[in-house]
Amino acid sequence: MARVRKQPGTREALMQYAPIVVLEPEKHKGKWHEIFGNTQPIQIEVGMGKGKFVSTLARQNPDINYIGIEVIEEVLLDAVKRMNRAEGVPDNLRLVWINASLLEDLFAPGEVDRVYLNFSDPWPKTRHAKRRLTHKGFLDQYAAVLKAEGQVHFKTDNQGLFEFSLNEFSACGWKMQNIQLDMYKKLPEGNVATEYETKFHNQGMPIYRLEAVKPC
Amino acid sequence: MARVRKQPGTREALMQYAPIVVLEPEKHKGKWHEIFGNTQPIQIEVGMGKGKFVSTLARQNPDINYIGIEVIEEVLLDAVKRMNRAEGVPDNLRLVWINASLLEDLFAPGEVDRVYLNFSDPWPKTRHAKRRLTHKGFLDQYAAVLKAEGQVHFKTDNQGLFEFSLNEFSACGWKMQNIQLDMYKKLPEGNVATEYETKFHNQGMPIYRLEAVKPC
Repeated sequence: MARVRKQPGTREALMQYAPIVVLEPEKHKGKWHEIFGNTQPIQIEVGMGKGKFVSTLARQNPDINYIGIEVIEEVLLDAVKRMNRAEGVPDNLRLVWINASLLEDLFAPGEVDRVYLNFSDPWPKTRHAKRRLTHKGFLDQYAAVLKAEGQVHFKTDNQGLFEFSLNEFSACGWKMQNIQLDMYKKLPEGNVATEYETKFHNQGMPIYRLEAVKPC
Repeated sequence: MARVRKQPGTREALMQYAPIVVLEPEKHKGKWHEIFGNTQPIQIEVGMGKGKFVSTLARQNPDINYIGIEVIEEVLLDAVKRMNRAEGVPDNLRLVWINASLLEDLFAPGEVDRVYLNFSDPWPKTRHAKRRLTHKGFLDQYAAVLKAEGQVHFKTDNQGLFEFSLNEFSACGWKMQNIQLDMYKKLPEGNVATEYETKFHNQGMPIYRLEAVKPC
């Protein structure tokens, strides 16, 4: 994304944050429980940005393990620095940078309990549709790593992306539930607002949300 | 609906419009083709109101048969009078008043090619949810009379009803397609605007639309 400037030395800086930042995530495929030292369910956020959402969830739910995934190294570095400056990184949270890797390279089938997608890049141009995190290519990846009946929880302020996502989930055979076209009319219990969410909601924009259950 | 005053003699007045108004529709279950004198597909609109939508479609598509269904006798009488005053009722259109009847009483399994629902009453109170034309009770009726892979095409200006409908179709296993959260951003080819639609669109309100394919 154009708004993030490439910073030399980011990779090296990230390495200093191991083991919070998991540097070779492919090596842990099928055995993430060893990383966490327990067999709690593992939930992931794809595109964690500044990481407020996933770190808040991790603090609220110590009986669940969380992995925040981010494709932009600079964003991931910023997130881990923020967490360290604030309350620290909870034991049940790890952060992962992936670039060309597929989720299937990181997780064994059924290893993931739930996937969160929050305010993902809408990629509004049709020729970029494949980059949207709710494109079939990604949905198939989520299905490959999710447990049976595992869910994707998706929030966005972007009407176009939400419309696309409704169609894509349905076309791919995911069953949707708790679809909301204006989430703040009836906020789901335990909702954790992201930075984007608070900003857009304060501007009076509707927030869209849905849950999608992996096809049988 | 409270806005329609009960008019004595409406039933008798409707009888004068036979055979355009089909008076005992249950008798034609499984043999609607006899009524039309051909074996063209049969599409129905449930809640046709003033009938502009279904009569326009009928004129545009002489190779399809249409049945406009209305539960309020006074509304049906008004619709047939309007059609007669205007361009007349096309040969491939019939009108039906049903009250307590179920669609299964009117049509044999698979007899219906498509169901249209346009700007149905939103019944916003939760205790009235069962009256919404996209409630499971109705979806099951559509499924019972639709052909394999037959579709429901649904439009509304009402956000709450659309949200409810997305959830209900998905929960009932219908696959949705061409979901639009603001239909006039990219109007579907051949869209026929209803009276309500034109009014709400001119007020700047978004129109929602979806197509849902009957579960296997």
